[in-house]
Amino acid sequence: MVSPSSPTPAGPRPAKRFELLTLGDELLLGLTANGHLTFIGAELGRRGVMLARNVTITDEADDIARQFRESWAQADIIITTGGLGPTCDDRTREVIAEVLGQPLVFDPAIEAAIVDRFSKFGRKMTPNNLKQAYKFARGEVLPNANGTAPGLWVEQDGKVLCMLPGPPNELQPMFTEQVIPRLAERGLLLAHEAYMQLRTAGIGESALEAKLQPVFDRYGAALGVAFCAHQGQVDCRLSSPGGKLTLTELDAAAAECEQLLGEDFMCYGYASLAKVCGDLLRAQEKTLAVAETATGGLLASAFTDLCGASKFFAGGVVCYSNEARMSLLDCPECLLEQHGAISAECAVAMATGVAESLGADYAVAVTGFTGSCRGTQVNPVGTIFLALHAPHGVWSKELSYPGPRATVKERAVNAALDWLRRELVRSQTGHNAPPRQSGAMQ
Amino acid sequence: MVSPSSPTPAGPRPAKRFELLTLGDELLLGLTANGHLTFIGAELGRRGVMLARNVTITDEADDIARQFRESWAQADIIITTGGLGPTCDDRTREVIAEVLGQPLVFDPAIEAAIVDRFSKFGRKMTPNNLKQAYKFARGEVLPNANGTAPGLWVEQDGKVLCMLPGPPNELQPMFTEQVIPRLAERGLLLAHEAYMQLRTAGIGESALEAKLQPVFDRYGAALGVAFCAHQGQVDCRLSSPGGKLTLTELDAAAAECEQLLGEDFMCYGYASLAKVCGDLLRAQEKTLAVAETATGGLLASAFTDLCGASKFFAGGVVCYSNEARMSLLDCPECLLEQHGAISAECAVAMATGVAESLGADYAVAVTGFTGSCRGTQVNPVGTIFLALHAPHGVWSKELSYPGPRATVKERAVNAALDWLRRELVRSQTGHNAPPRQSGAMQ
Repeated sequence: MVSPSSPTPAGPRPAKRFELLTLGDELLLGLTANGHLTFIGAELGRRGVMLARNVTITDEADDIARQFRESWAQADIIITTGGLGPTCDDRTREVIAEVLGQPLVFDPAIEAAIVDRFSKFGRKMTPNNLKQAYKFARGEVLPNANGTAPGLWVEQDGKVLCMLPGPPNELQPMFTEQVIPRLAERGLLLAHEAYMQLRTAGIGESALEAKLQPVFDRYGAALGVAFCAHQGQVDCRLSSPGGKLTLTELDAAAAECEQLLGEDFMCYGYASLAKVCGDLLRAQEKTLAVAETATGGLLASAFTDLCGASKFFAGGVVCYSNEARMSLLDCPECLLEQHGAISAECAVAMATGVAESLGADYAVAVTGFTGSCRGTQVNPVGTIFLALHAPHGVWSKELSYPGPRATVKERAVNAALDWLRRELVRSQTGHNAPPRQSGAMQ
Repeated sequence: MVSPSSPTPAGPRPAKRFELLTLGDELLLGLTANGHLTFIGAELGRRGVMLARNVTITDEADDIARQFRESWAQADIIITTGGLGPTCDDRTREVIAEVLGQPLVFDPAIEAAIVDRFSKFGRKMTPNNLKQAYKFARGEVLPNANGTAPGLWVEQDGKVLCMLPGPPNELQPMFTEQVIPRLAERGLLLAHEAYMQLRTAGIGESALEAKLQPVFDRYGAALGVAFCAHQGQVDCRLSSPGGKLTLTELDAAAAECEQLLGEDFMCYGYASLAKVCGDLLRAQEKTLAVAETATGGLLASAFTDLCGASKFFAGGVVCYSNEARMSLLDCPECLLEQHGAISAECAVAMATGVAESLGADYAVAVTGFTGSCRGTQVNPVGTIFLALHAPHGVWSKELSYPGPRATVKERAVNAALDWLRRELVRSQTGHNAPPRQSGAMQ
């Protein structure tokens, strides 16, 4: 869950009005989340544009016509998603052509692409697929590498209409590879990212602002600053609102911030904590194992979602019983009896146990109480113990988070990952934490 | 990911027009997913209402006024989310009061609730919080058990306006406990769920329809039928479109479908496969362990997300190397060398290994290739091997799914869970699969 604090993107806000029209009964019935808004909103935001509106409507022809007419009157750029497929309830193309007063014309090039796609998969094309081979008479075609329905592009009345198919794996590459460059060419969004994003971890928003204040003071109003807080992470976006700073100057300001942040600086851009840890582990040719209770597989998932995780990730254990802790992680029974499973001692035994079981250089363990199952209760508090096993020592840490279960789990995972990240940064720069025994440091 | 096929809810569609107005720059910038649409859309859908439109706009006063005016002219019921908080960018209450021509009045009862909430948490109330103590002069207050901003309810011009705070843990219980009953009292939605939902697993939509056709034929047009397909699951919703069937008759039709479905029937309602498996395990006082590679913690997560998982879930192992398979699961090295890690033999060794390590009665293992890291490539195929270890035997199964990585992972998890579910249903009814050795059956 992201709880943004100051979400307005830095950079000048273009005067043009962008609207996103998402079509589909499944969105209105809550059967599918509106991921198109999340994806397209973020992509445009990075180029200095905030959507003025997103409207979700049914697949009914009347609704589409009414809404499109209203939006076309107000907006300069309209992006639609969905309703371009081969079946009878895919009516968007026809309805909008009528509102625009443009005929649809058959395009043999689209037909060839559809036929080619079917033959590649060894399937027979049904005639209704040819419905997708029509384009606007005065419009262009956006090829779809992952599906049969191409996108459509129209410029009319000084406005732009861009229609995209609904499946995310078709829409997303079309948007970044075709739509963004076309909009940039026409000056409708910035040709490069609107801001330089410094991603930080383990520091709160106000502490971050205080730390960077010397840089902000020096640049004054020439430097635009916006913060966006996630669970345990805060992004700081630097921009040049009036265009007074060159890209080189913006880079320099960012580098000054990076310098001031020290270990709190995580990366430029959008990489996840797991990705940053993975890159550090690969660069140092080290391996990692994880052991978890409270986070129930979430920590392992954070790594296994990455491409090439097997290069550094040895594996993970999810323990839900003391038997599991003893048999898989060699946690001593007397330790579990004396301190209990939710303790710093148990976390340390789990980290060391999984590192030894899997022959990993580093290990992270999470044990704890994530609070009530129901997220709606008043202030349930999660008590979490983390342990970090490194080649030169093992440490534990206690955390206490108020909030619903899902949030506590996410914060615990992020805290564990950030601790690992800091340790890996120190080991890369030779500034390791104090070794457990003198001489053990490498 | 849900890919609904026939999402229109069964039951009569009321003539009243519902609109949802979601406010927040963070939604338009893709920083937060629009979970309110998903939640409210689904809640209304269950009561026979489909939202006519969802509009997401910025927090700007002008935008709110313009959109609210337009929506209020068209809709009969408007629900708004967000913008009710204490800070200066929370303007919704004031802007809408102006459009409605209603003054806002201070309500000492709201003030008392806010003061009480702050004192309970031992924090000092800042004066800006009193902004939340205003209600519409001719309106009501919807108390908020989990936050300071109450909801507001207005009936005017024969229409209903319901304003809710943005945080999901505040909005969701307010919606189900207060808004749904109020709307039902006024006859604006059904007093009970609009349909009887049979959830099935492991059967495709067309096969499901064919299996149930005898029931559909007998009831004819009196019975409304709609299907909604997820990854490896299909929901069948039965309703009485013209109100011709009583609830008892609808129950009887559902029971006939359940009978015809046999093991393909999973549950009534909305429970997950993991929940159904967990309930079966608890009823039979059996325990479960999981071992996974390709699904990287997703299978363990499915169980650890459940309340009370520790009652039946022993734990899980995520293996990303042969060393992990050997040390944690006792997979024989010669087996891994001969057959490889992506093989039926390895899956069986993993399932048996994790069951023995954790002393669990049942175990499920997933190993395989989930396809390319990039979801956008053409037809990457995932090859998955599953194994199921039960008290009376162990079996393996090969699956092959085309599609992007995330989809393959989800389908593999669902296939594994469904296999376990069927085995548990059989063991409950005494119809176990053939035992490995005669006499091993209990």
